[in-house]
Amino acid sequence: MPVGDPHTVRAFDEELARLNEHIARMGGLAETQLADALQSILDGDEEKAKRVIEDDTQVDDVHMQVEEEAIRMLALRQPVADDLRTIIQSLKAASTLERIADHAASTAKRVHVLHEGPAVPPVKSAVRMGWLVLDMLKQAVDALLRRDIERAVEVWNRDSEVDDFYSSLFRELLTYMMEDTRNITPCTHLLFVAKNLERIGDQATNLAEMTYYMVTGKQLEGERPKSDTSSFTIVEPKHYEG
Amino acid sequence: MPVGDPHTVRAFDEELARLNEHIARMGGLAETQLADALQSILDGDEEKAKRVIEDDTQVDDVHMQVEEEAIRMLALRQPVADDLRTIIQSLKAASTLERIADHAASTAKRVHVLHEGPAVPPVKSAVRMGWLVLDMLKQAVDALLRRDIERAVEVWNRDSEVDDFYSSLFRELLTYMMEDTRNITPCTHLLFVAKNLERIGDQATNLAEMTYYMVTGKQLEGERPKSDTSSFTIVEPKHYEG
Repeated sequence: MPVGDPHTVRAFDEELARLNEHIARMGGLAETQLADALQSILDGDEEKAKRVIEDDTQVDDVHMQVEEEAIRMLALRQPVADDLRTIIQSLKAASTLERIADHAASTAKRVHVLHEGPAVPPVKSAVRMGWLVLDMLKQAVDALLRRDIERAVEVWNRDSEVDDFYSSLFRELLTYMMEDTRNITPCTHLLFVAKNLERIGDQATNLAEMTYYMVTGKQLEGERPKSDTSSFTIVEPKHYEG
Repeated sequence: MPVGDPHTVRAFDEELARLNEHIARMGGLAETQLADALQSILDGDEEKAKRVIEDDTQVDDVHMQVEEEAIRMLALRQPVADDLRTIIQSLKAASTLERIADHAASTAKRVHVLHEGPAVPPVKSAVRMGWLVLDMLKQAVDALLRRDIERAVEVWNRDSEVDDFYSSLFRELLTYMMEDTRNITPCTHLLFVAKNLERIGDQATNLAEMTYYMVTGKQLEGERPKSDTSSFTIVEPKHYEG
């Protein structure tokens, strides 16, 4: 950015602060959407689920605003170095938060089917997994807004916790499906709920990586700790049939 | 960008062309990854599936290159208007292609389990859905590289075709699961294959929207034609039990 002119500098800082506020708003909305989606599953509250689905457009609107402002800043201020990196990472963070909110809305879309069918115990496990993911998301948003790299690394290290939960829930769901064919429909929808939550955990980890890069200009080193083994899970139905 | 200096103009055009080449390469890789993932499912070819999973890093590497070049161009050339829009949309397209390749790799991860378990007929339906999606992806990449908005609109209008296929496959899979509990494990993994393919269709549609915006500076108007009803699907097991 043009240095030397204090007016321009101040205007740019104000614009950066506004960009950060928009992202804070998106983070808050994404958290609320996820919390409400989980609560609506737990309570079988179709009204609340409907609101989550409808409110997804709010997140989309703020996302569009972030994009427009970032592009305007790039065109008018022509930032370089740290400022350029901050704007590009903000664009990426906004698009990640938008996808997180999408996954929350997809989760809420399953409430109707889950409420229609027989109650299955893994609903509670899925919601517990959701709380874990929500906690991780809050921490990731917090780290992003405060540019707190220590907190970002903490989030990054928690992704495998979510993966472990997901792998065990995956197995639990298959087991319930084999026990009683009436469980197949609700458990299938819960599989997708679990997958959405696993994706949110993954994206919270992405946010942590963006935060780290935004602050340090370096990539978080090492392999991301992954332990999702669900793609390889086989559950045999035999002992239910004997 | 600074006008008037023909050297700078030419250098910028060359950089834009190189950026487009990288994106062409990502598009080609994503298409190959998807085609190979589908073929490996059809043939139960675990070796091929393994290569798809491993080759995902190639796509990640080109993605990183695109990001680095785009950011360098923003810093050095300080483009405005059309050029700025092209660079930002290229960044978004690259990140979308990277996610498409991710979904292809996730699809390939299921080959092992599918190969282990009993053969289930919906494998063929899933692969057919995959071919439809692959065709749509090719068209979307083509439209993006040629800046062909007519072709982009065609892709955009095809998303509901994929959604219809997905909804019917979802129902087919639930039905097979209820017929025989031994089908539950393979059909569950096929549900995730189908979901990955549906996501790729969605992202091809996103590519079409980016192409349209890149060329015209306007958003594609109207609601995206959606017809995925799977979140609301209930299949009752009753008539298999009587």
